[in-house]
Amino acid sequence: MAPWQAAQVGDPVSAIDTPALVLDLDAFERNLQRMADALRGHPVRLRAHAKSHKCPEIARRQIALGAIGICCQKVSEAAVFVDAGIDDVLLTNQLVGTTKLLHLAELARRARMGVLVDDPLQVLALAEVARSQGVAIDVYVEVEVGGRRCGVAPGTAAARLARLIADHPPLRFAGLQCYHGAAQHQRTPLERAQAIAQACDAATLSRALIEADGLQVERITGAGTGTFLLERDSGVFNEIQAGSYIFMDRDYDDNQLGPQDVRFEHALFVRSAVLSRTQPTRAVLDAGLKASSVDSGMPAVWQRPELKYLKAADEHGVLELPANSPLALGDALMLVPGHCDPTVNLYDELVCIRGDRVEAIWPIAARGALL
Amino acid sequence: MAPWQAAQVGDPVSAIDTPALVLDLDAFERNLQRMADALRGHPVRLRAHAKSHKCPEIARRQIALGAIGICCQKVSEAAVFVDAGIDDVLLTNQLVGTTKLLHLAELARRARMGVLVDDPLQVLALAEVARSQGVAIDVYVEVEVGGRRCGVAPGTAAARLARLIADHPPLRFAGLQCYHGAAQHQRTPLERAQAIAQACDAATLSRALIEADGLQVERITGAGTGTFLLERDSGVFNEIQAGSYIFMDRDYDDNQLGPQDVRFEHALFVRSAVLSRTQPTRAVLDAGLKASSVDSGMPAVWQRPELKYLKAADEHGVLELPANSPLALGDALMLVPGHCDPTVNLYDELVCIRGDRVEAIWPIAARGALL
Repeated sequence: MAPWQAAQVGDPVSAIDTPALVLDLDAFERNLQRMADALRGHPVRLRAHAKSHKCPEIARRQIALGAIGICCQKVSEAAVFVDAGIDDVLLTNQLVGTTKLLHLAELARRARMGVLVDDPLQVLALAEVARSQGVAIDVYVEVEVGGRRCGVAPGTAAARLARLIADHPPLRFAGLQCYHGAAQHQRTPLERAQAIAQACDAATLSRALIEADGLQVERITGAGTGTFLLERDSGVFNEIQAGSYIFMDRDYDDNQLGPQDVRFEHALFVRSAVLSRTQPTRAVLDAGLKASSVDSGMPAVWQRPELKYLKAADEHGVLELPANSPLALGDALMLVPGHCDPTVNLYDELVCIRGDRVEAIWPIAARGALL
Repeated sequence: MAPWQAAQVGDPVSAIDTPALVLDLDAFERNLQRMADALRGHPVRLRAHAKSHKCPEIARRQIALGAIGICCQKVSEAAVFVDAGIDDVLLTNQLVGTTKLLHLAELARRARMGVLVDDPLQVLALAEVARSQGVAIDVYVEVEVGGRRCGVAPGTAAARLARLIADHPPLRFAGLQCYHGAAQHQRTPLERAQAIAQACDAATLSRALIEADGLQVERITGAGTGTFLLERDSGVFNEIQAGSYIFMDRDYDDNQLGPQDVRFEHALFVRSAVLSRTQPTRAVLDAGLKASSVDSGMPAVWQRPELKYLKAADEHGVLELPANSPLALGDALMLVPGHCDPTVNLYDELVCIRGDRVEAIWPIAARGALL
């Protein structure tokens, strides 16, 4: 990591060294509140996805506003949060291999831990470790609800797996994971509604067969920032796994919103400065591929629509400018990352600002926790 | 970072937890040797680019085989290497802002430091800091040689900037940066030869005007893994900044090589395992966007041409398989990253293997050094 920090608490924003990952606390807190407001009075709880932020300071704020716990994607990521005192973590992923399962068992001694399965072999391996380590683990059946990634087919296959879990205490069949990842960035409300209707059908069918087998389906969990109102109002889901709502990727600007949709704000930025300004209609920034993930497109320049981030090299970003642009060497800009989650994973800390001051530095403690 | 390591020295390769960044030491050492052999007896020295590896253990091996020093892209990255004892570092970048310049001055007390300029304002700011801090700094004029990024136009503009540097001791005019980044991945030998011929013309013209002004051009530096033989044989360049040759991106496989070109091997891999296997022609790996950079295309599956890495999500990679594939849950594969430099920047350590054993764990000490 960098041998020094981009800023200190109390610094003016103008003094933040670049590139740095900046969190606008006012916008972030409004996003937190909007999600809490949107779920209040509905039979769903937020289980915030911590893969977005990897930051215990943020998880604590989500829980303070009503989140039941968090999701993680990796057992090493979960360990960082359990070490930080978070006591209810769902690993929204399959864990394969004894090494990972032993780590999970160790965490299950200190927190309520859940994990997904989509194969009987995973259930048997989990059961063996849970027994040998003497720990209870919540196990969810992942149902393939349209995203064509992980998960068993809805219905019979899901019910069979639920039965297998229930027959292997100390595993505990906890419910269904019905996350439709691909739906989050579908562009029209109609496309998203159709996708989540399909997910609800898959969940409903699977639940009916599992209940017919005498098991309770305590939780049906899924949803993301792009679709969570659909799951909230489905009568099927009772947990919402949104993560990106706190930051808001640039890519979400391309989602058309319906009249009821909640408008979250961009709260996460890469602060970057001009390091080269030799051509009339171009400038080069100090933030490239290692400063902002480009898998969902180039970053946008915040509140400067006349500036276009054309392309990224490892450590450079090329901006296209109007011919008469006054943009000068050393000028700093705020970039809105195309995709926040992998961008956050490039940094060791969030420089948290309020107005024109640095208010806090929050460690991204689970950055790089890939195992 | 992950609260535990992917492997320990002495582990069998089969025990490496996934995803992990793996360096095949035999292939890596052959690559080091091939570069040293290719430059021996030629009037050029290697100044290896450390942005690729960010690892002092590797820089030391490059210097032991004849490299004159290293390049870095960021002053915080350079600080990690100077702290590790590397005493000759060229920052192949413009540094803007007093904060960064003061860090550079501090390093210049302990190592020979070079930096690029392409604007008179940068020269004046450097001169002020060098004087106030009482340090000498090598300053190179970056010439725009065809890559359309940073750099002044060849010729008069370059000569003017060289003169300005020379007139501002303790700055020292050290030479010309003439790196053609875009040429490295041009696909045919003819395209690359034309690009580097243009770079040589730009360098030659600039040198002639600078010498006519009574200044010496000690170094003309540039080149990368894709073109370095052209610069080696140009009679113009005397430093080679190759970096990727030690690892070899998947993307370099698409470069057609000429009969004289040096064949480097893939030495860097992301070890990944199958975590879901529910569909006949698909499998899901535990390595996605946060484990392998996809800006230059998806990773390839090493020595398994029948397996195609179709797409990456944050923590998942989707593989397409032949219908009868025996690939099973938990099976581990080695992925060849599309682009090694940003992939290395996702990890805290290199798991170095020889044959089927883990021989060493090398810290990627400058990972995340963005400032």
